[in-house]
Amino acid sequence: MDKILRIDMGAEGGPRSTETPLGEYAGFGGRAMTSAIVSKEVPPLCHALSAENKLVISPGMLSGTIAAMSGRISVGCKSPLTGGIKEANAGGQPAQVLARLGYAAIVLEGKPKDGTLYKVFINKDGVKVAPDNSLKMLPNYDLIAKMKAEHGDKIACISIGPAGEMKMSAASIACTDMELRPTRHAGRGGVGAVMGSKGVKVIVLDDTGMKMRSPKDPEKFREANKKFVEGLRQHPVTGQGLPAYGTNVLTNILNEVGGYPTYNFKQGRFESAGKISGETQAELEVKRGGLATHGCHRGCVIQCSGVYHDKDGHYLTKQPEYETVWAHGGNCGICDIDAIAMLDFLDDNYGLDTIEMGATIGIAMEAGLAKFGDGEAAINLVKEVGKGSYLGRILGNGAAFTAKAFGVERAPVVKGQAMPAYDPRAVQGVGVTYATSPMGADHTAGYAVAQNVLKVGGDVNALKPEGQVELSRNLQIATAAIDSTGMCLFIAFAVLDQPDTFQALLDLLNSFYGLDLTADSVTELGKKVLSFERDFNSRAGFTVQQDRLPRYFKTELLPPHNVIFQVKDEDLDKVFNW
Amino acid sequence: MDKILRIDMGAEGGPRSTETPLGEYAGFGGRAMTSAIVSKEVPPLCHALSAENKLVISPGMLSGTIAAMSGRISVGCKSPLTGGIKEANAGGQPAQVLARLGYAAIVLEGKPKDGTLYKVFINKDGVKVAPDNSLKMLPNYDLIAKMKAEHGDKIACISIGPAGEMKMSAASIACTDMELRPTRHAGRGGVGAVMGSKGVKVIVLDDTGMKMRSPKDPEKFREANKKFVEGLRQHPVTGQGLPAYGTNVLTNILNEVGGYPTYNFKQGRFESAGKISGETQAELEVKRGGLATHGCHRGCVIQCSGVYHDKDGHYLTKQPEYETVWAHGGNCGICDIDAIAMLDFLDDNYGLDTIEMGATIGIAMEAGLAKFGDGEAAINLVKEVGKGSYLGRILGNGAAFTAKAFGVERAPVVKGQAMPAYDPRAVQGVGVTYATSPMGADHTAGYAVAQNVLKVGGDVNALKPEGQVELSRNLQIATAAIDSTGMCLFIAFAVLDQPDTFQALLDLLNSFYGLDLTADSVTELGKKVLSFERDFNSRAGFTVQQDRLPRYFKTELLPPHNVIFQVKDEDLDKVFNW
Repeated sequence: MDKILRIDMGAEGGPRSTETPLGEYAGFGGRAMTSAIVSKEVPPLCHALSAENKLVISPGMLSGTIAAMSGRISVGCKSPLTGGIKEANAGGQPAQVLARLGYAAIVLEGKPKDGTLYKVFINKDGVKVAPDNSLKMLPNYDLIAKMKAEHGDKIACISIGPAGEMKMSAASIACTDMELRPTRHAGRGGVGAVMGSKGVKVIVLDDTGMKMRSPKDPEKFREANKKFVEGLRQHPVTGQGLPAYGTNVLTNILNEVGGYPTYNFKQGRFESAGKISGETQAELEVKRGGLATHGCHRGCVIQCSGVYHDKDGHYLTKQPEYETVWAHGGNCGICDIDAIAMLDFLDDNYGLDTIEMGATIGIAMEAGLAKFGDGEAAINLVKEVGKGSYLGRILGNGAAFTAKAFGVERAPVVKGQAMPAYDPRAVQGVGVTYATSPMGADHTAGYAVAQNVLKVGGDVNALKPEGQVELSRNLQIATAAIDSTGMCLFIAFAVLDQPDTFQALLDLLNSFYGLDLTADSVTELGKKVLSFERDFNSRAGFTVQQDRLPRYFKTELLPPHNVIFQVKDEDLDKVFNW
Repeated sequence: MDKILRIDMGAEGGPRSTETPLGEYAGFGGRAMTSAIVSKEVPPLCHALSAENKLVISPGMLSGTIAAMSGRISVGCKSPLTGGIKEANAGGQPAQVLARLGYAAIVLEGKPKDGTLYKVFINKDGVKVAPDNSLKMLPNYDLIAKMKAEHGDKIACISIGPAGEMKMSAASIACTDMELRPTRHAGRGGVGAVMGSKGVKVIVLDDTGMKMRSPKDPEKFREANKKFVEGLRQHPVTGQGLPAYGTNVLTNILNEVGGYPTYNFKQGRFESAGKISGETQAELEVKRGGLATHGCHRGCVIQCSGVYHDKDGHYLTKQPEYETVWAHGGNCGICDIDAIAMLDFLDDNYGLDTIEMGATIGIAMEAGLAKFGDGEAAINLVKEVGKGSYLGRILGNGAAFTAKAFGVERAPVVKGQAMPAYDPRAVQGVGVTYATSPMGADHTAGYAVAQNVLKVGGDVNALKPEGQVELSRNLQIATAAIDSTGMCLFIAFAVLDQPDTFQALLDLLNSFYGLDLTADSVTELGKKVLSFERDFNSRAGFTVQQDRLPRYFKTELLPPHNVIFQVKDEDLDKVFNW
């Protein structure tokens, strides 16, 4: 990981790849790397689909090592959805493989002058960028099957589906998992559309012949990793809840506290939540021969993923995440768990962000295109996106776009990006994150659900405005740092609750790089990353007025607690006063 | 004009109208009135289609008097197209009639809770707001025929077509002309969608029994009007060019100077311009029994309008304006003048902004939905909008929206609003106006074409950046003032060139209101209006970064002069330093 691979897709005579030393980007990984490069190199007022935008793909600082949980990969660019900077990250295998191939980042620059589609292949011998129009409009599963046939099964792939090729703002970038399935997505902000605009369909990575990255102090590193894993195993969330039921363990919890957005954010509790909860899902998965406990990449010890089989016992999709089950489920009034799993598969196959699509279908239902609760109608709507029909062109550009197309006023978006599975009126801390994150509405940017609801790492009353600004600030800083390490964000539950586990994380970084990082260093890194991002957004024309929830969250009461979002604007403006 | 009519469309038990004194808005008319009310009363971060937005309709200060050219009406609101403040104005009869009915403004507030559609009827006896769902989805021509059947032909109407009901961002508000046809549109910024969101289909005005508004000093007023009319008649633009050929006299002129945007702003000269020029159009109109010289409202002495008959000699539409002929013509490579006239009719009938729609069709052609030059295909695309099909929902939301739907990068918009018929690279002064006007890309906001191309009121080289900022600044100030008087903007040609005509305008205002206005007072009024607007936009989150042309205008050379837009960003930021 001592070099950056730059591929100029618009070079005269065809794409040209060059390798450059890290230079000013030395020491960065993951989100720190993508946000540094985007902020420094992309003109903030460029069109997100133009040659001036860059797509940066970066494994985390610890990716490619034996460290547990280090399989996250960050994707950054100017977002076609928000118009601001974007970092979306994913699990799966590519982070590990890319890191072992020695690349701290791949930067896709320029764009082809014609409509040619390219495949990028990287192995120990170098980089090949070859035109391959036979890949056009292939869904992700077919694409990956083709790559497997061509390159064997020792590969990891980063790809786009038809949605990315059609440059839709809800288009994701898929990463393959351990079974070489395109199930882990850098979902948010339309990063897939930017990859599509670069004319790159798939990046195939093969690390055969490459070694595991080696730490400066191997013994200390092994020891730190051991303590780190122990910490994760002993924490109730990472050691029990997530392994047993996956992220969907949250359905019952959020529904119970009245923070589960239902019928396009009209109420905070869904009468049929039990039918789509993690408990129900896990039971069904096991019954049908799937898996309720499973990792998305090698080295994962939390195992929050799973495998979902259809009624006939055949693979349908990976275990849908909580946010997906919510988006396509409760948010649309749908309680048919098989329909939700099919929607998860379709989103993965077309290359679409499940959160954005669920919010979009909810708006389409509010506009009268389908009835709330109709799973089959929802499936047909998502199929329109895959077809690229006119209706699909509307839906594939996300919730705000669909609301505008049909004159719907109630669009739950911030900076153009759809809100995830936590109503900001009933979980006010995450509302602060939605409003102020440079990413637009994003729960992962500062997951105050932990303290507001789960009571992990602190206890802040979810329904009151007090303390939420400080909470979101601290979480946004910590998250920006964790997103740079390559570590799965779920380590935060244990790291925030258990000082020893936090120290083990520091020891991993220090023993690997020969550094002397402290808690303060982590905070400084997080602040630096946020500063890159906020600086970009400011130069793109964002002001505090974009750091706001839609006004109806301040006037429309959310049952059952009949609450509004109460954090004052002037307090939101203090989030980044550090 | 000593009262404001406010209609709360969302009142309990149905719409409720109240009349209030002018209060702090005394002395304002037209754009000054709409921008003052919107800036003061509308929350800048509200949803443009929400109950919090207000639609303000205001005749100018001199409307309803015998003063020539005083028939402009202003419509203001938060724009669903730009997200900023909007003032769009139109000719036709409503300004005069509304002013004589005594109203300085109608303010539509709130919104109905159900989908009921209302008709507002105003005459000397008062105001009636009645539900009438039989009007739903009526095109403007059918609607006005129905109003004529119900209320006789002494009325003037302000209405929306299906596009406004569907809350499309390209929806206009139609005003009837002297022949009671819905041909004069407050076109820009989606004001029709806001009227649609208020549930108001049509405002029928009947001033039977009301008198002409009387000046403080009738004799001086008559004398000033006489001099004013003389000045207009003796100026070559207002006395000869516009009466003879209408605004479309500009096609040959702009084409000749290479500033005529062709094929979606790819070149500055259209090889077939002669086929759709004002000269060709006027000849055809006369030959078919239409009119080449005609006024859009009583009291007009410029007579730049006309009547366009089809091949069989039947009325098809009013004489299409230059910007319409350009938008649906050269911008789409179309040189079939009958197809363009049909598009003008369809836009008027559905209630759509012709500039936005022409720019939209140009982008649809760039996206491959139709071939450049295919008039029939363009007609079919606009018909989709009228139908409200999924494709129509895309196109009806304008150029930027359509570009996003189809992943087209080259969208000639500023603040989301499509550029009109003057390429900013070849007419750099109007480029400064496009970039910086609080309205988004709008030629009327500071028509530097006059000095850059027509050499009226000054001479500034169109292809060079020097002097354009001062020029645009002065024009934006003057325009904001003229737009407040109710005067047609075309008086500016004579007023800017002839000191006596400018003095006559001041004398009209002074003798009517008993004031002592000077040139400085007019400048102060213009600055005040712009300050209202810029203050609103600032609170809505706009910064200098929104005061920019799309970046390709700074890199893509425009033939035949092979020029780029050269005014520097830091100079754009000086436009409002006064």
